[in-house]
Amino acid sequence: MASPGSGFWSFGSEDGSGDSENPGTARAWCQVAQKFTGGIGNKLCALLYGDAEKPAESGGSQPPRAAARKAACACDQKPCSCSKVDVNYAFLHATDLLPACDGERPTLAFLQDVMNILLQYVVKSFDRSTKVIDFHYPNELLQEYNWELADQPQNLEEILMHCQTTLKYAIKTGHPRYFNQLSTGLDMVGLAADWLTSTANTNMFTYEIAPVFVLLEYVTLKKMREIIGWPGGSGDGIFSPGGAISNMYAMMIARFKMFPEVKEKGMAALPRLIAFTSEHSHFSLKKGAAALGIGTDSVILIKCDERGKMIPSDLERRILEAKQKGFVPFLVSATAGTTVYGAFDPLLAVADICKKYKIWMHVDAAWGGGLLMSRKHKWKLSGVERANSVTWNPHKMMGVPLQCSALLVREEGLMQNCNQMHASYLFQQDKHYDLSYDTGDKALQCGRHVDVFKLWLMWRAKGTTGFEAHVDKCLELAEYLYNIIKNREGYEMVFDGKPQHTNVCFWYIPPSLRTLEDNEERMSRLSKVAPVIKARMMEYGTTMVSYQPLGDKVNFFRMVISNPAATHQDIDFLIEEIERLGQDL
Amino acid sequence: MASPGSGFWSFGSEDGSGDSENPGTARAWCQVAQKFTGGIGNKLCALLYGDAEKPAESGGSQPPRAAARKAACACDQKPCSCSKVDVNYAFLHATDLLPACDGERPTLAFLQDVMNILLQYVVKSFDRSTKVIDFHYPNELLQEYNWELADQPQNLEEILMHCQTTLKYAIKTGHPRYFNQLSTGLDMVGLAADWLTSTANTNMFTYEIAPVFVLLEYVTLKKMREIIGWPGGSGDGIFSPGGAISNMYAMMIARFKMFPEVKEKGMAALPRLIAFTSEHSHFSLKKGAAALGIGTDSVILIKCDERGKMIPSDLERRILEAKQKGFVPFLVSATAGTTVYGAFDPLLAVADICKKYKIWMHVDAAWGGGLLMSRKHKWKLSGVERANSVTWNPHKMMGVPLQCSALLVREEGLMQNCNQMHASYLFQQDKHYDLSYDTGDKALQCGRHVDVFKLWLMWRAKGTTGFEAHVDKCLELAEYLYNIIKNREGYEMVFDGKPQHTNVCFWYIPPSLRTLEDNEERMSRLSKVAPVIKARMMEYGTTMVSYQPLGDKVNFFRMVISNPAATHQDIDFLIEEIERLGQDL
Repeated sequence: MASPGSGFWSFGSEDGSGDSENPGTARAWCQVAQKFTGGIGNKLCALLYGDAEKPAESGGSQPPRAAARKAACACDQKPCSCSKVDVNYAFLHATDLLPACDGERPTLAFLQDVMNILLQYVVKSFDRSTKVIDFHYPNELLQEYNWELADQPQNLEEILMHCQTTLKYAIKTGHPRYFNQLSTGLDMVGLAADWLTSTANTNMFTYEIAPVFVLLEYVTLKKMREIIGWPGGSGDGIFSPGGAISNMYAMMIARFKMFPEVKEKGMAALPRLIAFTSEHSHFSLKKGAAALGIGTDSVILIKCDERGKMIPSDLERRILEAKQKGFVPFLVSATAGTTVYGAFDPLLAVADICKKYKIWMHVDAAWGGGLLMSRKHKWKLSGVERANSVTWNPHKMMGVPLQCSALLVREEGLMQNCNQMHASYLFQQDKHYDLSYDTGDKALQCGRHVDVFKLWLMWRAKGTTGFEAHVDKCLELAEYLYNIIKNREGYEMVFDGKPQHTNVCFWYIPPSLRTLEDNEERMSRLSKVAPVIKARMMEYGTTMVSYQPLGDKVNFFRMVISNPAATHQDIDFLIEEIERLGQDL
Repeated sequence: MASPGSGFWSFGSEDGSGDSENPGTARAWCQVAQKFTGGIGNKLCALLYGDAEKPAESGGSQPPRAAARKAACACDQKPCSCSKVDVNYAFLHATDLLPACDGERPTLAFLQDVMNILLQYVVKSFDRSTKVIDFHYPNELLQEYNWELADQPQNLEEILMHCQTTLKYAIKTGHPRYFNQLSTGLDMVGLAADWLTSTANTNMFTYEIAPVFVLLEYVTLKKMREIIGWPGGSGDGIFSPGGAISNMYAMMIARFKMFPEVKEKGMAALPRLIAFTSEHSHFSLKKGAAALGIGTDSVILIKCDERGKMIPSDLERRILEAKQKGFVPFLVSATAGTTVYGAFDPLLAVADICKKYKIWMHVDAAWGGGLLMSRKHKWKLSGVERANSVTWNPHKMMGVPLQCSALLVREEGLMQNCNQMHASYLFQQDKHYDLSYDTGDKALQCGRHVDVFKLWLMWRAKGTTGFEAHVDKCLELAEYLYNIIKNREGYEMVFDGKPQHTNVCFWYIPPSLRTLEDNEERMSRLSKVAPVIKARMMEYGTTMVSYQPLGDKVNFFRMVISNPAATHQDIDFLIEEIERLGQDL
């Protein structure tokens, strides 16, 4: 891995803190150019600043404010015949960039500037000697910088400085020791694809305005359905803005399938609907029920076993109970990979019950879906092929950049019927191409961001086998962590047994608590341990891992691994760091 | 403006078609380097391919497959001591990039490769001599390329080729002659900011994982509320995945304000709710009503005048009618900038009615909100300050890259109460910083994409006055178009009078129809004119403009201008092109 200063692109002070307080951004990136290779640097700088003047060599203390560049005019004529004057680089503004005439040269220089800042950040993200976060409290950040929006423009030097400042205080989510969320890591091909997506700057509603992206969505969703196990990859689907919305889609479609009149008549025309999901399931099921007018009271939480898996007998009991009350069970949402425990509900048993009572079976595999890519681990989702719909977020376990969440639906056409409104200004029926590719009307959104390209390009670059290696590696690391701490002094596991996903849940018990009786006082003191260690982790910036209470269990650490940059040494480091930061508590 | 071959970065065959059929991607970007400046090119190429071999000069016909580069290993050791071998560039894979040890050098080269492809596309986007679109039918694209996803990885040369192919067939949405959607243009600062957002790769739920972005959202939403006219910018808001979702939020919050029990009890516990919006409003109001369990039958469409503005007396009549039936009017959604006509509903009159009947007033200013930045045009939204909520999409009239849509709410705390589910694993209450910045629980989503940074950075770069100039310029161009065609032979306006927004709606009447009587046959023939002209525009790739029928009006062109790259000459070109492509119909 990169060590500081060793790479040909590594440069500048740690975290760029010097740069962000110093307006010499042009100088900073000239320094980048200087380091590109010894010989080329000066010429690149000369090109940047104009041929007339050469900037101070790297390390010079004078910012190159006097350096000149051709200014761009803002006229409409083509070709432009305006007289060009030399101006200070710090006085170039957004209006000097394309589409300004003569804007090509400053635009390319500016975008290359930005890119150099981003490349520096990318390299640092993987460098263990840099901090995961340079933490500041909100009031500190608000006082230290002026973030306000004003009437007058700022120059491009200031704009580049804002980019540096923003990244200085950002979390390095690709850092090998960032374990805080289900989405971690920074995939280079995914990143490149996301840059391309931004540059293409279009919307997903029609083939007309997003021909390739629409086709790639078709190809990719079909492939995902094949992997789920639906015959021939048939069915439907969409990329939505996150797992919560995907789950809400599932709920909407299940309701529409049973009572299509809901679209026109609303919930008032329906009997009381009941959805079932486990007590460990994601809160988006309740959020969706609140939004859809179903109400959170109509989401019944089914009991879990000690590993966090839904208990099928309790599900059946609660279904019968609802039916006896005259309510209509319409959806069971099983979870494949719960947020905290990483548990997989028993999908086959759930599928049997759904079949018996004719209830829509949804599988929330937002977190666990990635395991379908692994021949070793996909058995944990056995039965997913019997689901009516599946949420699967490639931006979690598969390391695709945020955001990329798919809802897959087994029955074709249902989404379209549920959501279409026939807006004639968007979905004209007399176009000159095959209208089946105009998929926008099946979305809840109108304009829809292009989320597919990064997944598609990563899939091409890694192959299914590459995703498999990624998943297998992360699960192996989780098992490594589990094996280290399960019998280690000062640790208690929240549940017994080998982790099924990469979630490892544990308490760290500081020495002062180890001899205490298991009573309320100990629980109260233990509940404060994880928050303090976490706060210290963030202040040191060395690593980040999540904690939370759950049910009657006080605050415990929930370790998850989805970043392929992490290694065994990083797991060792985490344990050492928890002990270093928590031993005095 | 750039003309082909004139810029120092312009290169390659038109549309890059040669490149995409030829795997010599490395060669292509080396050609870029060659053109950067005469002297530096060779050295850059030498760096890229490794010092040992130099690629063929620009124009050489042999792809540089033999060019060597240090390969990266994939071990865990640090520092890495693996023996390095020279491999063919075409055999580098994603696994050779960071976080692979020794991955820094290939990563930087690869990302720079991608960037060069993107920069080439950016320059071409503004070049009028390139096509807006290189149109192919879906079956052609599907047959010409293999887009399928496979088990095995592809090498990085192929990945770069996919980037070129994808852009070859993309719509150049920043092209000065792309008028097809409400969102057009490609802002250079916005693009840079979106690249940075991708690189930071984080989520919006907490300050913990997005400190700067969370603060910038706070600052930016407050500024938008100030501009709307709410005292001190107080209130609430969120960036959501598009205007349709923003409108749905408004509906949800209005419902919750009146009947907070809906969250737990659902719609079954409520009387029948009725929403009102104009017959010209966006279809997302009905989509939202269908999703929320209100039902599309409960969305009453209010009549519009001949300019597409809601008629207040009809609104009041329908409200009284609903009340007489025992229904509960809960929301009026007025539109500020309708999709087709660009009409502004009379907000002051609507506000009076909402006040009188105690109904939530929402303003859908997704399209028209940008006019609030213009001292000359903001009077068209007079009364917006009396709204309870406002949808405002900076990705439309303000030219911010997709997507960037804000919902602003006048009452603080309502969003949080409506949507929060208290997920303890995400929103821990015992953190070490001010929790008021953990705004995720007010969202319908869980993870939420960072949409604010591009708007914030553009605002810094342009200033409010820069957005004002952008808006004023686009409206001036629309008036220019209107003045040309209103009395021109072969044109009929869909409605009379100067456009209020940049929407100009018109029929082009080919010579063969000009002498026909105004009867059904003429209407039938006229309805086919715009689709044929549009299809020809796309096949030639010269320009794109939308068309649609509306009510009893057959297909007409809806011209809109939101791209600051467009000039008077582009408007002239559009008219000439319509006449060239339509004269034989």
